[in-house]
Amino acid sequence: MWTNRLPRLDVWSEEQTDAVHEAAMTLLEEIGVRFLYEPALQRFRAAGVPVEGDLVRLDRGFVTEQLALAPEVFEVHGRSPERSVTTGGPHTALAPTGGAPFVLDPDGVRRSPTAADHAMFVRFTHAVPQFHLNESGIVEPDDLPVPSRHLDMDLDVLRWSDKPYFPVGATHESSADSVELAAIAFGGREAIAARPVMLGIVNPISPLLFDERMAGSAIAYAEGGQPVVFMPFVFAGGTAPLGLAGAVAQMAAEVLAGLCLVQLVRPGNPVVFGSSVSELNLHDGQPVYATAGHGLAMLASGQMARRYRLPFRGGGGFTSSPTPDVRAMQESLMALWPALLSGPNVILHAAGWVEGSLASSIEKMAQDVAALEVFERILAADLPVDEESLALDAFREVGP
Amino acid sequence: MWTNRLPRLDVWSEEQTDAVHEAAMTLLEEIGVRFLYEPALQRFRAAGVPVEGDLVRLDRGFVTEQLALAPEVFEVHGRSPERSVTTGGPHTALAPTGGAPFVLDPDGVRRSPTAADHAMFVRFTHAVPQFHLNESGIVEPDDLPVPSRHLDMDLDVLRWSDKPYFPVGATHESSADSVELAAIAFGGREAIAARPVMLGIVNPISPLLFDERMAGSAIAYAEGGQPVVFMPFVFAGGTAPLGLAGAVAQMAAEVLAGLCLVQLVRPGNPVVFGSSVSELNLHDGQPVYATAGHGLAMLASGQMARRYRLPFRGGGGFTSSPTPDVRAMQESLMALWPALLSGPNVILHAAGWVEGSLASSIEKMAQDVAALEVFERILAADLPVDEESLALDAFREVGP
Repeated sequence: MWTNRLPRLDVWSEEQTDAVHEAAMTLLEEIGVRFLYEPALQRFRAAGVPVEGDLVRLDRGFVTEQLALAPEVFEVHGRSPERSVTTGGPHTALAPTGGAPFVLDPDGVRRSPTAADHAMFVRFTHAVPQFHLNESGIVEPDDLPVPSRHLDMDLDVLRWSDKPYFPVGATHESSADSVELAAIAFGGREAIAARPVMLGIVNPISPLLFDERMAGSAIAYAEGGQPVVFMPFVFAGGTAPLGLAGAVAQMAAEVLAGLCLVQLVRPGNPVVFGSSVSELNLHDGQPVYATAGHGLAMLASGQMARRYRLPFRGGGGFTSSPTPDVRAMQESLMALWPALLSGPNVILHAAGWVEGSLASSIEKMAQDVAALEVFERILAADLPVDEESLALDAFREVGP
Repeated sequence: MWTNRLPRLDVWSEEQTDAVHEAAMTLLEEIGVRFLYEPALQRFRAAGVPVEGDLVRLDRGFVTEQLALAPEVFEVHGRSPERSVTTGGPHTALAPTGGAPFVLDPDGVRRSPTAADHAMFVRFTHAVPQFHLNESGIVEPDDLPVPSRHLDMDLDVLRWSDKPYFPVGATHESSADSVELAAIAFGGREAIAARPVMLGIVNPISPLLFDERMAGSAIAYAEGGQPVVFMPFVFAGGTAPLGLAGAVAQMAAEVLAGLCLVQLVRPGNPVVFGSSVSELNLHDGQPVYATAGHGLAMLASGQMARRYRLPFRGGGGFTSSPTPDVRAMQESLMALWPALLSGPNVILHAAGWVEGSLASSIEKMAQDVAALEVFERILAADLPVDEESLALDAFREVGP
């Protein structure tokens, strides 16, 4: 993984992060979060949390207690030890885009992905040193039967790569399957609970809702001792307030609600604070990427994650351009720079994203890797000042 | 102009900037700087500076005295007061690329520029709000006679724009002409000496040399009371040491030598610390842009300028791609981001640069302006946290 030695670019004062935190606490205590999944409600009830129908109200004392249980830094283990990734601190681990329903071929044709496409993206991700995490579901193979597709995708990662990875599970059943498959590959459930091997992604439904799939998925990863990345899709003006401070507060509330559930299942289970605050074009309702608001909200989200002493997932190279053209490159770099400057520990969608995640493009992925090579050395901030680099003897020899 | 409210991204510790400063002082004291221009040598001799042939050795006491004369912040006045630009502090003023021997048309044809092209670029620069400074010589019109071409180019700026500007003068004679022309437009030599209207660019010849043209140009601008931007073209591994700390030290020495000359002509005359440390491809000797070394050296140069309490000129959107393609956009943004994060007060070449400055492209310029619109709002770091942006009442109304 990379080491990010640049200073953090804080956009909010401590008073401002306090105010956003207070707003998040008010949302959790007063408005509450809905969990459309009885096993989640049972966990909250058993912990003495007030539950009204499917509405869970979390007071700040309880949230603070649960937050204190989640580690600030943790390891995710690769099948080869040198692939292991430290999540937290100055470390940044990257993965390419994922979850796309289409593949965009280099000839410009957008089509349904196949199992062969999925395996190709997994092998590419394994081969590229700038990707520290592999990923199940970079595209969704339409030629595989739905009930077992998630197992085939996870198997691709285990077969073609020894990097830690994002599994594809997205319900209690499929995430439990992801954990089971990893247990087979890594020496059993106890082994992977002691030394986690994957980062499960869970997307709360903004605003302030966990449905059966998402709550179930979070519980399954926690039951297996695997870290959970809570990653709300917040669109300011759509699924969140227009004001970006309110959008970040909502996102924090959603992440912290998920964190509480995870800690009730398995105290101390790692959780990653994820952020993707984007804006909507208020004329047509379409998401727009690479806006200044997106960049600033990303920087502010990194500050909130550090305030909570949680690892941060930011990123990545977002664009709404349907093809890897000049506009796609411009938008993706205008999004990726603030993402990398926000002090992220995990970056998903660092490369290969086109058309608002509708498609994964191997051409864009290769283009983006060229920028990632430069980013790695910029973030390392390694500019030695010593006798050799100052080269005064060379000046003495050569003169003006 | 813009206000840059982001924190500065320091890559060096105070001890490291001290060491680079000490190296720059050693270069000035021990190696010396050559001035191939008798009127410059006369100024140094008259001030008691040791001159041996054309070699001037500047001791640190003298340099520190001259440095103390140059202002940390100054105004450059537009013909309309609302166009005036503050140079220094948190302010950033931008200009497009300039000095190109060719124009690249949107149909992809690279050709010799005409007077009409020059006027078009000047009018475009005037019309775009992201450009705060206009520029004489964005392209070099081949259909104008050389002896008076600089006057025609400066006249374009005075005719088509009321923004402060970079004149095109590059010898004592042509820079004195630039000053005279401005004096006609702005109410006389005394008026513009009291309220400068332009930023003269002077490029030392790295390593550690000012030729007749450059030394003469610096003297002419200082005689007219106009600020001088010293802007060495430093290529690590070519015109400077391979080690970037040595390249930055050399650049600092070159800027400070020019500053001393300017202060001897007119004590208190504004000077801008310019930086363009790039790297050479050591296989073929070609400059390469948008490298990590370039970005880090830009951030370090900004630190040195702040150490010297001088306004800083960084930037811009550099690329060696000959056409406004995906690679050009990638390279220019990988260069422009560190430039804007370095705390620059002036950015030249913010838009429209292609092929290592061989050509100016209106297509690339228009593309780059789209990114500049986003940069302006990111640098403003304006992410209010208040009742309206937190929108708690909206949550109370809507619920989860």
